[in-house]
Amino acid sequence: MRAVLSAAAAALVPQDVRALVDVRALPEDDFSGFDFSDTRFLATPPRGRRLLPELPRMPELEVIQVASAGTDWIEGHLPSGVTLCNARGARDAPVAEWTLGALLGASSGLLEASAIKSWRHGVELQDLSAWTVLVVGMGSIGRKLEQFLAPLGTRVIGVVSQARDGLHGTAELPELIPSADAVVVLTPLTESTRHLIGARELAAMADGAVLINAGRGAVVDTDALLTELQRGRIRAVLDVTDPEPLPDGHPLWHAPGLLAITPHLAGASAGGHHGAAQLAADQLGRWARGEPLANVVTAGG
Amino acid sequence: MRAVLSAAAAALVPQDVRALVDVRALPEDDFSGFDFSDTRFLATPPRGRRLLPELPRMPELEVIQVASAGTDWIEGHLPSGVTLCNARGARDAPVAEWTLGALLGASSGLLEASAIKSWRHGVELQDLSAWTVLVVGMGSIGRKLEQFLAPLGTRVIGVVSQARDGLHGTAELPELIPSADAVVVLTPLTESTRHLIGARELAAMADGAVLINAGRGAVVDTDALLTELQRGRIRAVLDVTDPEPLPDGHPLWHAPGLLAITPHLAGASAGGHHGAAQLAADQLGRWARGEPLANVVTAGG
Repeated sequence: MRAVLSAAAAALVPQDVRALVDVRALPEDDFSGFDFSDTRFLATPPRGRRLLPELPRMPELEVIQVASAGTDWIEGHLPSGVTLCNARGARDAPVAEWTLGALLGASSGLLEASAIKSWRHGVELQDLSAWTVLVVGMGSIGRKLEQFLAPLGTRVIGVVSQARDGLHGTAELPELIPSADAVVVLTPLTESTRHLIGARELAAMADGAVLINAGRGAVVDTDALLTELQRGRIRAVLDVTDPEPLPDGHPLWHAPGLLAITPHLAGASAGGHHGAAQLAADQLGRWARGEPLANVVTAGG
Repeated sequence: MRAVLSAAAAALVPQDVRALVDVRALPEDDFSGFDFSDTRFLATPPRGRRLLPELPRMPELEVIQVASAGTDWIEGHLPSGVTLCNARGARDAPVAEWTLGALLGASSGLLEASAIKSWRHGVELQDLSAWTVLVVGMGSIGRKLEQFLAPLGTRVIGVVSQARDGLHGTAELPELIPSADAVVVLTPLTESTRHLIGARELAAMADGAVLINAGRGAVVDTDALLTELQRGRIRAVLDVTDPEPLPDGHPLWHAPGLLAITPHLAGASAGGHHGAAQLAADQLGRWARGEPLANVVTAGG
């Protein structure tokens, strides 16, 4: 055996690649009886964290292709010399759909109304078409969101680490945040993005503006967010939190203006899983034919 | 005085029209002291129903321009010989935004999650891009929704009373409903659309499909909807209900799968109100210059 893939990805490996490499599908949940000893290429399923304890059982491992765009959960566990590839791009559409849903859930009054369950309340409809949306971490998901917002006419401003090509640098956040109706966090978690949205940034948000996080929980300072929410000044919709999972009874669940928290599911749709499985099958083809891999995060030895 | 408009519409009447007609702005709320005796053109503000008791005080009335697309609330009260015009088109974008928000609120798990407030639950993300959306009452709002959905790739099927130009007739609903992931009601209320979505149509909806109503409450049979929701089979997001306002404690508020009810606010955004006010000012210009009026629902004598 040389390549181990999730069952969904294994099913997408074409015949010509199967002729070059022995493809084995992972079991659904219980990996204990599975023989990983000669695994050289591993494509993890969704929730790949479950495979971390198995990595020491793969002495031949050369490549890990994960099913997520973010790789913060695996970086500290990577055996030396192994090439790590992410699934950047594969889940852009479902993450952008979730984010558009969060924007419209806030602007339309629907998320507020779903909690209130009474006709006589101050829920109002705002025009998302008139909003300015600040995207912190403008990459392929942000571009997809921009496409989705184009027919509405919403203004989108993109922020990346260093200003380039019409995108602003994070150094400009203090000037950009006050004019945003929504601050959308899509950036991965790195040492330079941890708590990028902290007390100062949250305090700079306009009254009634909404913070949306579909990136990583720790890009936002949870304590600072709680403080600003409890002032009743801003609103928030989160798919990721810090800590995660967010325990029952955590004050975020019932903070005023916290419109909804979904359990880290943005991107985890059937279409997103299919995209990640297709990417893994494509990557296996490149590896089997000796071609350069795409989406390399850490190049192995 | 000859023309009475909402303050917002009066502010948009250009100087050349003011030279032709005496323009008066309505007070915000209390109409009791206002002299309507020589009113010939009336443009009602949002929630125009408040003006119905004043109509007998307008013996000179020739034209009523309302601020809503639907006119069911005024038709029975129309003085004979008066021309009635609706605000069709003026609120298309905000109603389509609300409807897109309802679709994404259902597909993204956000509306479910906002009520559950716990990490461990079965909320899932569906791909709206893979949905088939059946629009019952395909007019200018439905066309706007179709534009908003275009970059996602969602399939939209339009239904009107009689089949024409690629649109299906209501007679085809029994065959069309079962394959829809969402049934979106945008049709006005007339004698032929009352309870158009009844027990048979709701029973034909696929398991897990979502009914969205941004048209008029009574187009859907409330009792039949309650029955189907209580079976746990379908979901619903409503901006309009029958009765309306929906009283506190009504079983719809807590029916399983009823994801959100907003208090008839789709279209009532700042942008929607501005659009309706601009339309009223434009209509006054046409009337003052003796040109044909747009959006005529009932032509006066």
